[in-house]
Amino acid sequence: MSTTGKCFVVSGPSGVGKSTVLTALLNKHKDIYFSVSATTRQPRPGEIDGVHYHFIDADTFRSWISQDEFLEYAEFVGNFYGTPKKYVDQAMDEGRDVILDIEVQGATQVIAKRPETVRIFIAPPSWEELERRLTARGTDAPEKIQKRLLRAKVEFQTAHTYDYLVINDTVESAVAELEAIMTAEHCKANERIALIDTK
Amino acid sequence: MSTTGKCFVVSGPSGVGKSTVLTALLNKHKDIYFSVSATTRQPRPGEIDGVHYHFIDADTFRSWISQDEFLEYAEFVGNFYGTPKKYVDQAMDEGRDVILDIEVQGATQVIAKRPETVRIFIAPPSWEELERRLTARGTDAPEKIQKRLLRAKVEFQTAHTYDYLVINDTVESAVAELEAIMTAEHCKANERIALIDTK
Repeated sequence: MSTTGKCFVVSGPSGVGKSTVLTALLNKHKDIYFSVSATTRQPRPGEIDGVHYHFIDADTFRSWISQDEFLEYAEFVGNFYGTPKKYVDQAMDEGRDVILDIEVQGATQVIAKRPETVRIFIAPPSWEELERRLTARGTDAPEKIQKRLLRAKVEFQTAHTYDYLVINDTVESAVAELEAIMTAEHCKANERIALIDTK
Repeated sequence: MSTTGKCFVVSGPSGVGKSTVLTALLNKHKDIYFSVSATTRQPRPGEIDGVHYHFIDADTFRSWISQDEFLEYAEFVGNFYGTPKKYVDQAMDEGRDVILDIEVQGATQVIAKRPETVRIFIAPPSWEELERRLTARGTDAPEKIQKRLLRAKVEFQTAHTYDYLVINDTVESAVAELEAIMTAEHCKANERIALIDTK
């Protein structure tokens, strides 16, 4: 049996612990390809081309846009950021599952191009818990925490457009849910049926 | 967070190892309710009412049919067999997942009444492997094995109507796929979203 990889978009509000959960998942499953974005911004000290970002110039970025080379892209404070198709497709062709860590608007662009993409939204167990976590980080002033909390609630209004809602109760439980979703998606009958030789 | 249980129909051709896989799953997860059928046939020695079957008389069975008390039912060599709704609903209300081990026609009846039921078809890794397993059991003559194999292929023609296809490569891998499917179904965004307090 040969299988091609599947593509999973993971979104979630700031402070929900998405990066921690994804890092734990990727450490456990080295075969998963975590999509690296392309950007026109300058590398910061320590950032490696192809690892943290694919650093490309604005002309290249524009030509990739015109050649429909991006699954999604956006401009942010004067720089472009986007998800190149080619690395994603290459990994999937090798049978590797792909995770795109992108926010709600980027996810919408991906779905428009690739409706078969599986959408996962990571949510906190409760708003009280999210507030507690944002406070525990100790990095933000109370007003900023309230602002983040409000933005999280606004983002959550789009969660119904996702296929799955993973609740980040503990890192372990959230990773287990992500693993279950990825396994279950590979069990979907409509695609898997072709793997059984019906002769 | 409170959750209600979900209902899973599991079908699969004779010889595929469905009973072995389900027994392993149920031994691991004592909280899953494995639906017990009602029947009008006489108990065989050792069969316990409420454990192997709910043994009821033909009048009771007919009255349950007329009161729409069955998720599905059928007649087989003069006896009736059916899945009573009440035990399934009771378990789901208690938050327990329910497994119905029923064949393709029964599954169609369940879906007609409860479209939200998750359908899982258990398939062999290949027809060669199914033939090998049927032969290894040593209980059937070659012609009977060929007949079972043919019936398995006919049943497999309905597999595309199921949500998931679990491949019984090893008992462990099939159990892991069933566990993943059950977990993932509880992560479906449209239902789970109500569990997050959005105030």
